[in-house]
Amino acid sequence: VSENSKNSAALQRLREIDREYRLLSHAAAVLHWDQETYMPEAAVRDRAEQLSLLSGLMHDRITHPQIGEQLTALGVAFEQDPVPRVPETFRGIERAFLRELARQYRRNSKIPRRVVTELARQTAIGQRVWVEARKTAQFNKFSGQLAVILALVREVSSCLGFEDHPYDPLLDEFEPWLKTAEVGEVFAGLREGLKRLLDRIKGSGKTVDTEYLSRTYELEKQKSFGLRVLEALGFDFKRGRLDESAHPFTTTLGSDDVRITTRYDDRFLPSAIFGTIHECGHGLYELGFDPSVRGTLLAEGASLGLHESQSRMMENMIGRSLPFWTHFYPPLKRLFPDSLADVDLRRFYEGVNRVTPSFIRVEADEVTYNLHILLRFELEKQLISGELAVDDLPAAWNAKMEELLGLKPPDDAKGVLQDIHWSGGTFGYFPTYSLGNLYAAQFFSTLKGDVPDWCKQVERGRFQTILAWLKENIHKHARVYPARELCTRVTGEPLNPRYLLEYLDEKFGDIYGF
Amino acid sequence: VSENSKNSAALQRLREIDREYRLLSHAAAVLHWDQETYMPEAAVRDRAEQLSLLSGLMHDRITHPQIGEQLTALGVAFEQDPVPRVPETFRGIERAFLRELARQYRRNSKIPRRVVTELARQTAIGQRVWVEARKTAQFNKFSGQLAVILALVREVSSCLGFEDHPYDPLLDEFEPWLKTAEVGEVFAGLREGLKRLLDRIKGSGKTVDTEYLSRTYELEKQKSFGLRVLEALGFDFKRGRLDESAHPFTTTLGSDDVRITTRYDDRFLPSAIFGTIHECGHGLYELGFDPSVRGTLLAEGASLGLHESQSRMMENMIGRSLPFWTHFYPPLKRLFPDSLADVDLRRFYEGVNRVTPSFIRVEADEVTYNLHILLRFELEKQLISGELAVDDLPAAWNAKMEELLGLKPPDDAKGVLQDIHWSGGTFGYFPTYSLGNLYAAQFFSTLKGDVPDWCKQVERGRFQTILAWLKENIHKHARVYPARELCTRVTGEPLNPRYLLEYLDEKFGDIYGF
Repeated sequence: VSENSKNSAALQRLREIDREYRLLSHAAAVLHWDQETYMPEAAVRDRAEQLSLLSGLMHDRITHPQIGEQLTALGVAFEQDPVPRVPETFRGIERAFLRELARQYRRNSKIPRRVVTELARQTAIGQRVWVEARKTAQFNKFSGQLAVILALVREVSSCLGFEDHPYDPLLDEFEPWLKTAEVGEVFAGLREGLKRLLDRIKGSGKTVDTEYLSRTYELEKQKSFGLRVLEALGFDFKRGRLDESAHPFTTTLGSDDVRITTRYDDRFLPSAIFGTIHECGHGLYELGFDPSVRGTLLAEGASLGLHESQSRMMENMIGRSLPFWTHFYPPLKRLFPDSLADVDLRRFYEGVNRVTPSFIRVEADEVTYNLHILLRFELEKQLISGELAVDDLPAAWNAKMEELLGLKPPDDAKGVLQDIHWSGGTFGYFPTYSLGNLYAAQFFSTLKGDVPDWCKQVERGRFQTILAWLKENIHKHARVYPARELCTRVTGEPLNPRYLLEYLDEKFGDIYGF
Repeated sequence: VSENSKNSAALQRLREIDREYRLLSHAAAVLHWDQETYMPEAAVRDRAEQLSLLSGLMHDRITHPQIGEQLTALGVAFEQDPVPRVPETFRGIERAFLRELARQYRRNSKIPRRVVTELARQTAIGQRVWVEARKTAQFNKFSGQLAVILALVREVSSCLGFEDHPYDPLLDEFEPWLKTAEVGEVFAGLREGLKRLLDRIKGSGKTVDTEYLSRTYELEKQKSFGLRVLEALGFDFKRGRLDESAHPFTTTLGSDDVRITTRYDDRFLPSAIFGTIHECGHGLYELGFDPSVRGTLLAEGASLGLHESQSRMMENMIGRSLPFWTHFYPPLKRLFPDSLADVDLRRFYEGVNRVTPSFIRVEADEVTYNLHILLRFELEKQLISGELAVDDLPAAWNAKMEELLGLKPPDDAKGVLQDIHWSGGTFGYFPTYSLGNLYAAQFFSTLKGDVPDWCKQVERGRFQTILAWLKENIHKHARVYPARELCTRVTGEPLNPRYLLEYLDEKFGDIYGF
C-alpha cells in the first residue's frame, strides 16, 4: 500500500465521520427551527429528549478516537501549537479541512463528558431560573445558579488550557485563534473614538424625532414589505425561507436550506424590517459558500465575528443608509399612507438612525451598541478570572453603565439580567458582536473602493454587484481561511477600529450636523 | 445477582435501545413533515442524505444483537412461532413490549442489510420513474423498474419466510399476524355484498347532483372551517397542528406532537373537508395513547387497518353523516352564501355521499372504494406469487376493473399507474384500507349500542362522549393488544364484513330510496 493511498484512506475516513456529524447537526437544526417556529407547545419535553440524543450522537462523532489516530497518521500535529500543524503536502481545501478538524477534535476531546453533561443540565436549569429572575427583576434569584454555571465554565477553560488569560479558550470557541489581549487592544481604540463621537452628538444639540415609528403598522403589510426587501437583496427562496419566531435567528438545515426568522410588532416598525435585513445578511453568507465545502465542517462562517460582519453590514451600512431608503421609502410609504403621511424620506432616515444611550443592548443604536458590548466583555473577563464575584456583578454592571453610557439602570431586568447568554453558559460570545461591526466597516470600506457607484446602485434597488462582491471576497471562502487571515486578504490589513469609527463619524456627522 | 434484578437489567437495556430508536424515528418524522410542508425546494438532496443517515442509525438499533441476547436471557422465544412466546411472569405492558420488540427484531434482523439498502435505492429510482410514466400514461416506462423492485420484495418475502403464501410476510408488516387467506375470506364476503348493493343503487334510477361541489370556495374560508371542525372533534392544538401538503397525512413527531395535513382545492369543496376529518381520526388515535406506553414501541396503532378504522370512522361514519351536517351545514353555508345559495342540507348530504364507479381510488365513494382495494389485493398476491408477470399487469388491471366496476380505464394513468405504492416497494399495504373500513363499521356498531343518543349529540356538535368512548375502548390501548384481539375485546367477535355491509345498506338505502 503506497503512502498516497494510505493517506487517501485516512482522509476518506475523516470525511465520513465529519459528514455524519454535519448531517446530524443539520437534522438537529431542523428540530431547533421547528421548535422556534411551528412546534405545538406541549411538545417541549419530546423535543428536548430528541435533541439531547442527537447532541450525544454528534459528540460521539466529533470526539471519535479514530479522528486523533488518522490525523496523527497523516502527520497533523495538534497537541501543542494553537493552530494545528498540517504537513505542507496538503493544500487548499484539504489543508483547511485537516486544520479545522484537528481544532474541533482537540477542543471537544479535552472537555470530559461529565462536564459537558453537567453543563447541559445546569444551563437548562439556568435558563429557566433566569427567565423567572428577569420577570421579577431580582438578581439574587439567579445568582446561585449563575455561580454553579460559572464554576463549570471555568472548569471548561482549564480543561482547554491557556497561556495568558482563562478567557482565551472561551473566546476561541467563537473567534478561533483570537486572543483576549488582542480584542482588548482593538476595543480600547474603539472606546476612545466612540466616547468622542458621543460627545459630539450630544454637543450638536439636535434631537431626532422617532414618534412616528410607534404608530400602527399592520402585520401583513410588514410581512409583504420584508419579502420584497429580501427578494431585492438576493435571498434565494428556492434555498431558504422566512418565518416568524419570538427571537429572530438564522439557521442552516442543509447546504441548500438556510432559513431566517423575524418578529413583527404592529406598534414598532423597525423591529421586523431591520431584523429581517440583519438575518438576511447571515443567510446570504451561508448561501454563498463554495460548493467545494458542501457538507463538510468548512461550510461555516470563518468565525462568529465574521458572520456578524455580514449581518451588520447588511442591516446597518446598507439597510440603514440613505440610498437604501431612497429606493425603499416610497413603497413603504405607499403601504402605510396614514402612519407615514407626515414623514418625509429624510425624517424617516434620521429616525431609524437616532443615537441615544439606553439600557437594553438589543435596542441600541449603531454607536452605543458597542459600548454595551465593551461593558460585557470587561465583566466577563473578570468573572472568568475570578476577579469579580457573582454577588458583586449587579453593582459592577451598574457602575460600568454609568461610566460608559451615563445611565443607571432602574432595576436588574433593565441591567444585568437582560441577556440570556450567561444563563446558557455562553461566555466569550459577546465580543463577537462588536468584532462584527468592526469587520463590517473594514470590509465595507474596501467594497466602496471596488464598487464606487454602490450608492447609485442601491438607490435603484440593485444589489447584484454588492452581493457578487461579498460572495467572491468573503462568502465563498466559508471557513477555509481563519477570520483574521480573511480580513487581511480582503482589506489588506488586520482588524483596525479606524474603519468603524470613520464610518460612524461620517454618517452621524451628517445626521447630527457636525 | 438475583433473577429479578438480572431481568430488570435486561429489560432496562431493551427499553434504552427502543427509546433511542423511537427518538430517532420521531426526529426523522420532523424531517419528513418539514419536507412535505415548508422545506424549500432545493433542499431535497440535503434532506435525503439526512434521512438516509437517520434510517441507518434506526436500523442499527432495531437489529442490535443485544436485543436478541437479552430477549433470550429473559426467556422470550421468538425464532419459531409467529407470535413470540413471552414467559407468563411478564404481564400487561411489559408482556406486550417484549412481544412487539421480539416481532420487530425478528423481522428486521432477517432481512440482510444489502437487501434493505438495495430496496431503498431501487425504490428511490422507482418513484421518480413512476412519476414520469404516470405523466405520459406509459406503463412500459415503469415496468422495467417495477420488475426490479418486485424481485427485491419477493426476496424480502423469502428472507422473512412463510408457510402458506409469499404475500403473508408482506401483509404481516402492516397487519401483524393476519394471514392472506383470512383477508381473502373476509374480502370475498365483502365483495358479494358490495355487488348486491351496487346493483340496487343502479337499479334505484336515482341520480344525485354534485355540480355545486365544484363551484368556487375561497381557500381561507375553507381553512377556517376545517379548524372549526377539528376543534369540535376534540383535536388538541397544544399537542398538534394542521398544515398543508400535496398529499394529506398524519405524522407523530413525539408523544405530545401529532400533526395532520390537508390540501385545499378552491374548485372542489370535499377535498379539504373530508381530508381534514380523515386525518383528524388518525391524529386522535395517536393523541389518545395511554401515557404508560409513552416513548416506547407500543405507542403506535395496533395495526394499519386499526389505524385506518379510526380515520374512516371519523371521515365516513361521522363526517359524512346526516347528523354531522345538520350541525355543520348552516355555518358552512354562511361561509359560502353564494356557492351554496340553492343547496339545502339534504342536497348537500346526498352530494357528498354520491355512489358512482370511477377510475381513481382516492376519489372513490364509500361503496366502490372497497372494490378498488379488492382489485389491488388480487393483483398484488399474483405479482408476489409469480402467477402474474409485470408485463401482463395493465391488461390484468383493466380486466379486473371491468369485472368489479364495469369500467375500462382510458389509459394507464387512470389505471395501473395511479398509485404510488408499488413504486415504493409497498406490497401488502392496500388491504389495510378496506380492513380499516371493516373495523370501523364493526366498532361503530358497538359504539352506537353504547352511546344510543350519538345522533343527537352529533347534531348538537358535541363529540366528547364519542371521543371518550374511542379513547377508552381503542385509542388508549395503542399497540398493547394485537388488532384482532382488540376487535374481539371491543365488539365481542372477530372481524366480520356484515357490519360494513349493513351500515352501507342502511345509509345508501336511505339516500337512493330502497
